Amino acid sequence: MDPLPQDNGFHIRRTALVGVGLIGGSLGKALISGGVADEVVGLFRREETMKTALAHGLVHSGTMSVEDAVRDAEVVILATGVESIPELGRSVIPFVCKNALLTDVGSVKGAIVREISSFLADRPDVLFAGSHPLYGSHLQGPAAGASLVPAGRLAVVTPASGRSNADAAALEAEKLWRSIGMRTIRLSPAEHDRLLAFSSHLPHVVAAALARTLPAEADMLASSGFLDTTRIAAGSPRLWSEIMRQNSAGVADALQRLIGDLACFRESLLLQDWDTVAALLESAAAAQARVRERAPRKD
Amino acid sequence: MDPLPQDNGFHIRRTALVGVGLIGGSLGKALISGGVADEVVGLFRREETMKTALAHGLVHSGTMSVEDAVRDAEVVILATGVESIPELGRSVIPFVCKNALLTDVGSVKGAIVREISSFLADRPDVLFAGSHPLYGSHLQGPAAGASLVPAGRLAVVTPASGRSNADAAALEAEKLWRSIGMRTIRLSPAEHDRLLAFSSHLPHVVAAALARTLPAEADMLASSGFLDTTRIAAGSPRLWSEIMRQNSAGVADALQRLIGDLACFRESLLLQDWDTVAALLESAAAAQARVRERAPRKD
Repeated sequence: MDPLPQDNGFHIRRTALVGVGLIGGSLGKALISGGVADEVVGLFRREETMKTALAHGLVHSGTMSVEDAVRDAEVVILATGVESIPELGRSVIPFVCKNALLTDVGSVKGAIVREISSFLADRPDVLFAGSHPLYGSHLQGPAAGASLVPAGRLAVVTPASGRSNADAAALEAEKLWRSIGMRTIRLSPAEHDRLLAFSSHLPHVVAAALARTLPAEADMLASSGFLDTTRIAAGSPRLWSEIMRQNSAGVADALQRLIGDLACFRESLLLQDWDTVAALLESAAAAQARVRERAPRKD
Repeated sequence: MDPLPQDNGFHIRRTALVGVGLIGGSLGKALISGGVADEVVGLFRREETMKTALAHGLVHSGTMSVEDAVRDAEVVILATGVESIPELGRSVIPFVCKNALLTDVGSVKGAIVREISSFLADRPDVLFAGSHPLYGSHLQGPAAGASLVPAGRLAVVTPASGRSNADAAALEAEKLWRSIGMRTIRLSPAEHDRLLAFSSHLPHVVAAALARTLPAEADMLASSGFLDTTRIAAGSPRLWSEIMRQNSAGVADALQRLIGDLACFRESLLLQDWDTVAALLESAAAAQARVRERAPRKD
């Protein structure tokens, strides 16, 4: 992980934000307020969202035409949910300039990088790398994005290894994220998905299972600990279904390890092996402290 | 669950707090500031803790003598961790007044109510009921207790069904908790432990397993969702080992249900059964919303 950047001299004349919701909106705001981009154009599907984004200063202008949004842009960011990123990628590619950087913000990377790479097969002149800026909110939409600040957070950049300019594209994507104050780390798409299965997708599955398992007659006994532990289960089922679909192998592997750990704990309870129970709880407290210390966001 | 009380006319001349840590301290403060108890005496093991409790106004006086603390008290509250409550109960019983209320604050109830009932076999004149005030903090000690407010939270009262005055004792314990603004609910010790296994003990086991399962190379990728979901795993391993020991059957049953749910989710991923994946995530989001609505603490 790189240290927090100073001004890295990265400057963009024109950026296209393909999708201006929570993440896209926060990126537009950061690119404009930091003076990184002279012009930020948003691609919208709905007039209402465009008005909100313009009112909050998240884009300089908006359009509903893919061609108008992407033409002449030096940087094109696909900033919708994972389920629509590949198709949007396919639709923008004919209009992407030579030597422009094309990247995305999807929280699963293997399928997206593979599919967009295939659509780009006859465009060796485009610089493409996958990205995953690691921040968010339980809120949605551009208005919420206006108060979400990327600076200080981590962006994972995942090179498209099959392309001849994969390394140059990844470097360019890293410059983009650092220009708005983010830290960056580079991982292969597969490694990203393997690790995110543990750090992000598995917690969601577990929070969901805990919420489903609580008998209704215990609702009024639910402590703040229960609410903390299940909070993320409230996230959009549609979005999370798609994440599970795109990373099903990674999540299934992580689940197998977790189920094994839980079964071992249960066995220790049934065997009344209190030394093992204590040792498992101690190692967990130590692991939680380690993660709390190293995680980019501490709160 | 009863509505929030007004002043219920409950008044205590002298209360003994056997243990003045986080919960005991918060109770002393509430009893004194609410004018419920004329005199709150704390039993301490360490001078240092006694000084802190006196400085924060959590007790009127402190002693290291069990007899001095408990003699003449109308209400005796065993307010230490679950592991020491039964033995402390045994040590105070010889000094508890006729018709005094004896209760505790332990977060597991079956073993505590059973053991203290057995120690009380030849004291039918004591009013004994188990209690579990459902609030806490990740902090410990009396100084933290000074800013912890029981009002508005829920107290579970668990009658000692084998005793002839079990019902009268439970009524008296309910009056005590309501006098400091708590809501009350009455459950058998076994029912309390069965439900708390799901609402409190299982989330701890799961948070611990998630923390242990994260590969160290994913630490820097841990999102705020991961930190939320594992936060309670930082709790005292000693305290939680004892809770697991005292409710091992309840926790093992709850774990079996959770493991079954997780295995079903994993199976759906492997079968690429996206309809089931979506349905499980939707039912979880609905369950989380239901609990958030009904849980006594909303934050």
